[in-house]
Amino acid sequence: MKSINIGIIGVGNVGSATALLLENNKDIISARAGVEMIVKKGVVRDIDKVNKDINISISNNLDDILDDDSIDIVVELMGGVDTAFEVAKKALSKKKAFVTANKAMLAYHRYELQEIAGDTPICFEASVAGGIPIIKALRDGLSANHIMSIRGILNGTCNYILTKMTNENLNFNECLKEAQNLGYAESNPKLDINGMDSAHKLLILASIAYGVNAMPEDILVEGIDKINQDDIFFANEFGYVIKLLAIAKKTGNDVELRVHPVMICENEMISKVSGVMNGISVIGDKVGETMYYGAGAGGDATASSVVSDLIEVARDSSSPMFGFKQPLESGLKIKSISSIESKYYLRINVFDKAGVLSKITSILGDNGISIKMLLQKNSNYEGVATLLLSTHKSNELSIQKAISSLCKLDVMYDKPYMIRIEE
Amino acid sequence: MKSINIGIIGVGNVGSATALLLENNKDIISARAGVEMIVKKGVVRDIDKVNKDINISISNNLDDILDDDSIDIVVELMGGVDTAFEVAKKALSKKKAFVTANKAMLAYHRYELQEIAGDTPICFEASVAGGIPIIKALRDGLSANHIMSIRGILNGTCNYILTKMTNENLNFNECLKEAQNLGYAESNPKLDINGMDSAHKLLILASIAYGVNAMPEDILVEGIDKINQDDIFFANEFGYVIKLLAIAKKTGNDVELRVHPVMICENEMISKVSGVMNGISVIGDKVGETMYYGAGAGGDATASSVVSDLIEVARDSSSPMFGFKQPLESGLKIKSISSIESKYYLRINVFDKAGVLSKITSILGDNGISIKMLLQKNSNYEGVATLLLSTHKSNELSIQKAISSLCKLDVMYDKPYMIRIEE
Repeated sequence: MKSINIGIIGVGNVGSATALLLENNKDIISARAGVEMIVKKGVVRDIDKVNKDINISISNNLDDILDDDSIDIVVELMGGVDTAFEVAKKALSKKKAFVTANKAMLAYHRYELQEIAGDTPICFEASVAGGIPIIKALRDGLSANHIMSIRGILNGTCNYILTKMTNENLNFNECLKEAQNLGYAESNPKLDINGMDSAHKLLILASIAYGVNAMPEDILVEGIDKINQDDIFFANEFGYVIKLLAIAKKTGNDVELRVHPVMICENEMISKVSGVMNGISVIGDKVGETMYYGAGAGGDATASSVVSDLIEVARDSSSPMFGFKQPLESGLKIKSISSIESKYYLRINVFDKAGVLSKITSILGDNGISIKMLLQKNSNYEGVATLLLSTHKSNELSIQKAISSLCKLDVMYDKPYMIRIEE
Repeated sequence: MKSINIGIIGVGNVGSATALLLENNKDIISARAGVEMIVKKGVVRDIDKVNKDINISISNNLDDILDDDSIDIVVELMGGVDTAFEVAKKALSKKKAFVTANKAMLAYHRYELQEIAGDTPICFEASVAGGIPIIKALRDGLSANHIMSIRGILNGTCNYILTKMTNENLNFNECLKEAQNLGYAESNPKLDINGMDSAHKLLILASIAYGVNAMPEDILVEGIDKINQDDIFFANEFGYVIKLLAIAKKTGNDVELRVHPVMICENEMISKVSGVMNGISVIGDKVGETMYYGAGAGGDATASSVVSDLIEVARDSSSPMFGFKQPLESGLKIKSISSIESKYYLRINVFDKAGVLSKITSILGDNGISIKMLLQKNSNYEGVATLLLSTHKSNELSIQKAISSLCKLDVMYDKPYMIRIEE
């Protein structure tokens, strides 16, 4: 049987799971790839930390892999942006196929890589939603469709926290601590919690769906750390759940790209994705809604995607990097966040004085925002009342202006908190 | 731009949707395929019935396509087994790529086609679960995994009926009629209702997952027509839903293949697939559970899959027919149904006389079956009581022997009805 030589750069959690998977499932991998896959070398910063079960030659010099002409495929699992990008460029310049799980690097440099690669395969199934084959689904399975929308739960840590807040009545910090104890959240969970991890993944999906270019800084990204039990209470009361969604949506020639918490109807399939799991709902103009569900992180699940890419390369059945050979839809442009339309939820803590409600409703009315549902409850603070309300369809500019005006009222206890309602 | 010529055999619902999709989404299809797709000819039995919106040359002679050397890809959407198989053989013998939605033909002839095809692409995404790209997910996305199980809701008609029976308290025949009125069920819905349609699809999935060969007649296939409101009541009461599942499961070297109604815990993701939708849960040894959800039928959704196959062929990125180049796992064999283990639900209608319950429980006890939950209720028939019970884990041989013995009791009103409990 023919063989293919692989070099793995970054032999941490996912890297060692990949090496072990290639060893443990060798039988079916060879049968499906039609070749034998040999991990020839691994490169890692700290050799002493490598999992002792892995039986491959390890060094700490990138060039041991990049300059080795016998290595056919470079697997990049080191993370980070700059060095990883250098590795990618060098591998591709030597016509080595490049397989990566590095969403941050792709978020910044994906189109440069597409340019450099030419016909050399670049695969990145593991960069979005761990073990769920969403890249291949979007790139190959739904290729006949104009993609109308993508809505993804792409960060397991956030979904775990929100699910636990909902089911167990705990506050954000308690749930975050629990996620860290269980190993779901990093010791520095900032990129998870602030939505940036999801944004990186969204940009990759949007490149396949639309061929549009945007950097993480170009799009609206909000995290989940301000959500509290009042918001969960309101959602429960009116048949919503709160999820951190990565959203790409096309209307006419406008593409919306945004990551933020949403209230979404509990009956939608994506709302049923709970705990640490990921899920992506895609609507195509012909196929309608399809949804993909599974583990979004973890060594083995991520390695499953990495190795599926290796098999794709070995079979010589790679699709173009983003699934298109000519430029995709022309004339698409990124919609500015201020022009999106949505329904909104507001949590407003006010000092409980006469006339407060009338001041608030008149500010909303002045901005053309009409209230759909309103709940007033006592807050945990003496003399403070909490107003929870949802609006009919409005737009981002109006709601932001209304929030600014509300902030200026002397009866505000703190800044109003807004969550978009996704329908 | 290069072009590829396509011939469509069978220009009914899916065939015309395919032709229209190729026309309407021409822009992205060319961009993604890298070639222009031209439907050169269609063949249909009754030319007068063809959708008038379709602007292609139509004949009623198969050879107009099969003998046309300029046609690169034959799309078979005619249905049926024998003629479709002849078409497939002839197309492949002429090295034309072959794209089909024909599950029945594949259920019987898939391995012969694999043999004949050699390196000529055969694609059949549309044969299982309509618009859901489950074939590509299993063949490409999960290719690194030993597949532990597949559990599919593969027939929208059955799922619609069961959902409606559950939500609206209606009986089977009322729901079937409604499904027919809505166009979900054929005027002759036998193959849907009796599970055979799901069985065809299961065999195709099992070939990708395991490389095992079986004919529809070799496996257990049960339909949904005997399910009644008593069963729905019991399921509701104990946190189950009733679904028609197509199941493939590997334990050691044994592969179970079966299609039958199940009671399954309402919390599982697959249980949330309701109405006319399809869903497939796949468990891989590394990736864990992933699930795929979407429209399992309908012209546009099915055409989405057909055209994704055309794009795959045009890109020259086809995988092997079942995703393996060498024989897959060796030594796997189909497990006989009599040796499967399961928990069971029984509905037993008896004449309401003293001592009846003791007779029944002693028969179960004699067969080593222990009862987990038991409900007794009045039946709709005077003097008849209905016993609804679930068992602890038992095996198929024991439950079938127990049912036979129960049938011989003179207190039986009718034959006991059994549903397997899937866990």
